[in-house]
Amino acid sequence: MKKGLQLGTQSVAFDKPVHIMSSASVVGPKEGEGPLKDTFDKTVEDATFGKDSWEEGESEMLKETILLALRKAKLKAEDVRYLFAGDLLGQLIATTFGVMELRIPLFGLYGACSTMGEALALASMTVHSGFADTVIAAASSHFGGAEKQFRFPLEYGNQRPMSSTWTVTGSGAFVLSKEYGDVVITGITTGKVVDYGVKDSLNMGACMAPAAADLIYHHLKDFDRKPEDYDRIVTGDLGVIGSEILCKLLRDQNTDIAGVHMDCGMMIYDDERQDTHSGGSGCGCSAVTLAGKLMSELRSGEVKRILFVPTGALLSTVSYNEGQSVPGIAHGIVIEKGV
Amino acid sequence: MKKGLQLGTQSVAFDKPVHIMSSASVVGPKEGEGPLKDTFDKTVEDATFGKDSWEEGESEMLKETILLALRKAKLKAEDVRYLFAGDLLGQLIATTFGVMELRIPLFGLYGACSTMGEALALASMTVHSGFADTVIAAASSHFGGAEKQFRFPLEYGNQRPMSSTWTVTGSGAFVLSKEYGDVVITGITTGKVVDYGVKDSLNMGACMAPAAADLIYHHLKDFDRKPEDYDRIVTGDLGVIGSEILCKLLRDQNTDIAGVHMDCGMMIYDDERQDTHSGGSGCGCSAVTLAGKLMSELRSGEVKRILFVPTGALLSTVSYNEGQSVPGIAHGIVIEKGV
Repeated sequence: MKKGLQLGTQSVAFDKPVHIMSSASVVGPKEGEGPLKDTFDKTVEDATFGKDSWEEGESEMLKETILLALRKAKLKAEDVRYLFAGDLLGQLIATTFGVMELRIPLFGLYGACSTMGEALALASMTVHSGFADTVIAAASSHFGGAEKQFRFPLEYGNQRPMSSTWTVTGSGAFVLSKEYGDVVITGITTGKVVDYGVKDSLNMGACMAPAAADLIYHHLKDFDRKPEDYDRIVTGDLGVIGSEILCKLLRDQNTDIAGVHMDCGMMIYDDERQDTHSGGSGCGCSAVTLAGKLMSELRSGEVKRILFVPTGALLSTVSYNEGQSVPGIAHGIVIEKGV
Repeated sequence: MKKGLQLGTQSVAFDKPVHIMSSASVVGPKEGEGPLKDTFDKTVEDATFGKDSWEEGESEMLKETILLALRKAKLKAEDVRYLFAGDLLGQLIATTFGVMELRIPLFGLYGACSTMGEALALASMTVHSGFADTVIAAASSHFGGAEKQFRFPLEYGNQRPMSSTWTVTGSGAFVLSKEYGDVVITGITTGKVVDYGVKDSLNMGACMAPAAADLIYHHLKDFDRKPEDYDRIVTGDLGVIGSEILCKLLRDQNTDIAGVHMDCGMMIYDDERQDTHSGGSGCGCSAVTLAGKLMSELRSGEVKRILFVPTGALLSTVSYNEGQSVPGIAHGIVIEKGV
């Protein structure tokens, strides 16, 4: 029976679904003015969250999100056995300083903007196997901290090409349990590093699309499903340009997802009004879209089954400045309305 | 039965041990001149591993180590279901570029120098639960890349205080399986972020010792064991100064580990001859000491049971320069001679 958990070359199908007890999302002011504004639990006006730096602000945001998810699940931090979390900053400082006071055993994760998927995958496997009754999966990103680290200081006021995306200031947290909650995780597909040699750090969609295509292709093969078996296949932050590339790459493999594909990065901002170009990005982009809009649609039954595919561009200024490409990775999570 | 896997507040005891099929270690020239030189699988003379930068060299080293562990286990990359790996560099670039060609589904991890423990913990849980038959856990660090990222460029030639440690250029990899191999993992204890407010980036031992003490204290409590139940309690890279603090902190809690405590950072270099001050550090320090010396002693039966406790200092130049402390984290793995 245990053997049957393994599906195809890189997937797992849970014989007993893992339940999402609660989800929470906290975002910054720009996200709070976008099309998804009514789906977030909390929008703050001050992007530093009352702290002295963007990094400390991101830690505060992550902590608030986790505490909110705990309150919704009527749990305390000490009821949680493991925390699976990560962010975009070097050495995961947003996570480190954000979760310290909670004193929950921590598995620190880095999957770039795919981290929310990596966290949900490991968290759900851990609950399924009985190593924990209750765990939390969380991820965050912050526009100010990300621009400073990966591109230019905001004060420099650089021009942003139309292919660029806007890092979401936001964090999402999910309490997973073996029995409570009417939305469930029924399977996962784990991604590989995929590199098409793209070297443009201001076109992350193009860097990530090949990894997303590889993930979705193998997911459908492993589960023996068609795109239509999902109400939605939701990528994390490919944006307009990356989404076009994704659909084309999959069409080349005789897989047409255009009818069910959505991208969190294309939903979270209104480019015409908010000047965000190709869309939103960052771990927080897919995390808050899932925690808010998608979870609410799953809970209501409006949507029955989605494939959630956060996408990560493994960008580093060091490797980038040494002339290396920006490889991508993606993780897939099957999320369904429970019975 | 499943419930029984959970032990105390933060541990797991495997009812069926997870087997270590093979281990491999590759190190740089300085490590190859130290006291453990005969225990490593491969020592290279050129710390760039024939590449153009330290970072690319670290990737090459990690790849070689994984391929060596695979060869020893008589396996190919496609036989491995998951890779759990990480390094110290921002956005895990050593790992990203090192494992790309292997095309194994990847969970990228960041636990600073505790990453080898985090990887072994998640890898063994995944095998135990039947999600995979064979997985790899790996970690690496590189002196040149780490100094450049965390402290000063080597060319600057800064003075190193006596409390400083020397980042090990080395990587370790372990093939874990559900049945083959005569050394086994029988339990894990997962660490929390612990902060005593130490702000000295050149005294990492002091930053990490409280986390190691917290981990060992809770491990012994969860498993209802005494220090003497282990032939060795082996910390990762506390060095001379951190090890003294660890033993004192535990004595204050009526736990005396002095008789069985060893530290990989104190074993890997000869300070008098190699001018390494407090000892070795980095993910690679505990990874290569476990893969070489400790695994060989376990295989021969010279040692029956160890508690392996890699220790991580969650240092980032960004948080550090913003005035924050350097918190620590540690992960514990029980490794035994199989029957």
